[in-house]
Amino acid sequence: MPIDLRDLRERCAELDRDDPLARSRDQFALPEGVIYLDGNSLGPLPMETPIRLARLVEREWGEGLIGSWNHGWVELPMTVGNKIARLVGAGPGEVLAADSTSANLFKALSAALALRPDRPDILIESGDFPTDAYIAEGVLAQRGQGGRLTLARREALAESVDGRTGVVVICHVNYRTGQLHDLARLTTEIQARGAFACWDLSHSVGALPIELGAAGVDFAVGCGYKFLNGGPGAPGFVFAAGRHLDAVRQPLSGWFGHRAPFAFSQRYEPAPGIARFACGTPPVLGLAALECGVDLALAADLTAIRAKSVALSELLIELVDARCAAYPLDVMSPREPALRGSQVSLTHPNAHEVCQALIARGVICDFRPPNILRLGITPLYLRHVDILDAALALADVLDRVEWDQPRFRERLAVT
Amino acid sequence: MPIDLRDLRERCAELDRDDPLARSRDQFALPEGVIYLDGNSLGPLPMETPIRLARLVEREWGEGLIGSWNHGWVELPMTVGNKIARLVGAGPGEVLAADSTSANLFKALSAALALRPDRPDILIESGDFPTDAYIAEGVLAQRGQGGRLTLARREALAESVDGRTGVVVICHVNYRTGQLHDLARLTTEIQARGAFACWDLSHSVGALPIELGAAGVDFAVGCGYKFLNGGPGAPGFVFAAGRHLDAVRQPLSGWFGHRAPFAFSQRYEPAPGIARFACGTPPVLGLAALECGVDLALAADLTAIRAKSVALSELLIELVDARCAAYPLDVMSPREPALRGSQVSLTHPNAHEVCQALIARGVICDFRPPNILRLGITPLYLRHVDILDAALALADVLDRVEWDQPRFRERLAVT
Repeated sequence: MPIDLRDLRERCAELDRDDPLARSRDQFALPEGVIYLDGNSLGPLPMETPIRLARLVEREWGEGLIGSWNHGWVELPMTVGNKIARLVGAGPGEVLAADSTSANLFKALSAALALRPDRPDILIESGDFPTDAYIAEGVLAQRGQGGRLTLARREALAESVDGRTGVVVICHVNYRTGQLHDLARLTTEIQARGAFACWDLSHSVGALPIELGAAGVDFAVGCGYKFLNGGPGAPGFVFAAGRHLDAVRQPLSGWFGHRAPFAFSQRYEPAPGIARFACGTPPVLGLAALECGVDLALAADLTAIRAKSVALSELLIELVDARCAAYPLDVMSPREPALRGSQVSLTHPNAHEVCQALIARGVICDFRPPNILRLGITPLYLRHVDILDAALALADVLDRVEWDQPRFRERLAVT
Repeated sequence: MPIDLRDLRERCAELDRDDPLARSRDQFALPEGVIYLDGNSLGPLPMETPIRLARLVEREWGEGLIGSWNHGWVELPMTVGNKIARLVGAGPGEVLAADSTSANLFKALSAALALRPDRPDILIESGDFPTDAYIAEGVLAQRGQGGRLTLARREALAESVDGRTGVVVICHVNYRTGQLHDLARLTTEIQARGAFACWDLSHSVGALPIELGAAGVDFAVGCGYKFLNGGPGAPGFVFAAGRHLDAVRQPLSGWFGHRAPFAFSQRYEPAPGIARFACGTPPVLGLAALECGVDLALAADLTAIRAKSVALSELLIELVDARCAAYPLDVMSPREPALRGSQVSLTHPNAHEVCQALIARGVICDFRPPNILRLGITPLYLRHVDILDAALALADVLDRVEWDQPRFRERLAVT
């Protein structure tokens, strides 16, 4: 399909001018000459973050010293958690920002299984992000009550819930394919079969509207350093539905989850509410940086973010179809926007080399084995013209390179 | 006992001039007019930390973006862990910097018990830092194999190890009293009775020489934000003796502890060595700040640090004896330096009010219930004259205040 490039560039520029999110791009420190399609892996730096960190370090830590614990630090996991709650349709006191996503999943799965001793198994979608299955293995091995980890194909997930299934872990958006689950429907189906639903929102939080409360979700976890732009290794978060909070216990019962951490009592008594999911002393630097990223998502409108994400993704797919049809490049993500998260995954036999060649041209994306080129769509700072330029760079890489020639690899080694 | 103040101040100033650690004080950003005796709770800001964080945030994250994972970030937990190893007498590959101290204790205790299924119990010193007992409760509740938590008095710890005791948790320095355990002797006694020794080094690492390897310690954990000056909520660390590393498994089996995290394989296979104690994505900001603090401890000499700590503590006790004998102020910490960590704990019926009055005078210390005034001795930035001034401030507080008058509390409420 021939496309008129000049016309298309003008159309993109016009869409960017009319974009209600256009000004949020100025809130990020993006390097010159880079089109960043990897914000679903590590979000870029918000302009506010270095300012906030300098104030935190030099004033709160340097001058306030130990006293700063009483001026906001102790509450940071709840403060940031309550802000994230507004992004995921949860109530105040249902979300805690703490630890890593993996550690939070350990807590959530342990808590879920402890509520239902007659159902010791964990069910998980095969092909989901591996750490979720690894953590499930760890939980089950330590519980040692005959609990098994079952993997099921995506389409067979709900029907695989049986009388032994205590909790199902589902990644809202699949990290490889970009497929988006129907959170409300699947939660209902899982619960109808008697299991708890635990959602991993790592690839959806901040990218699209989520309604944990309306969907009646039991537990959820998510990541702070992708669409929330919280920085490398930012704390994750954990959600537990208010109806579970009085009964639920989790095994990482450190002092910050205690009812009265500074009473230094000898026995553990869990704090009321979601605070019982806290473990050790909160990572103040990481939480402050995360808050800066979360604030940007809150300042935008998730419906607008989602609408622009769909528009950018559709544009990208349209361009790939038009310009790359001659090559063995396939759209792996669902073509139906309602079934797709905020990324477009493509497959190519030489996906790794294509990825390296794009990075060398300033188009930052990533490769996932064995043959996936993953393009993250992040509406807070990507423009329509960026998508156009990225697609043209991709077409150019495919046009120029003879994949079967050994010198291609040599050339890559140099760049 | 009368003391000649002018003579004493001159003596202190002379000791400070001759102090081999004198120049390390310049490496810290200490507020004017503050004598900081709470570095055993939150160490002050190293001068290097804001510089390192600004470079990390603006250059590595802001410009390097996702690519920075391949330029040092992935290795940070091992890099910083190997530096801490040099402070605790461990070998390379035996220490990992990660997560919170509490989470690390959860891993270490779980790992220890899994190695010895016939010994399901945990023994801990009564009156140790509460989070250690809380975490032990969490581990035992989740394992559910009839394991019990036993608390024993300090003097009776080794003899309380019985045939069911799998692991003993001991705080090297007691957070309340400042008592220092003989790490080598107690490790030998515990192991002779068939249990593993797991040391919590939170109040000793960076304050005195530690020889985990020579003592044959099995497991250890420690804190990054006290004597290591790593910042509020800095990552902690975990040590496992090299002889255990091939066999040991821990339940927080997240992707960063996998043999090949970026292969995204479906089943968990632990990484070789201490890296299997990693869980989620490492907290890069916190690790970088921690590294700055660790570097300062490494640049100094732990023997010199310990010698100065003893000298400062002896001076403080001498002054308290000389100036405060008329008041119900008692030295709670052992008077024998070899039995004392790097803090001097005093008791007073109005310890909380005394603490508040000292803080109002710029002498930052802390209160621990019910009647403990805790003074942290941190040789990297405290001088003999600081100890003199702190002791004089304490005596002044006691001299001026009529404790039984209600207006004292009112006055405190104003300051």
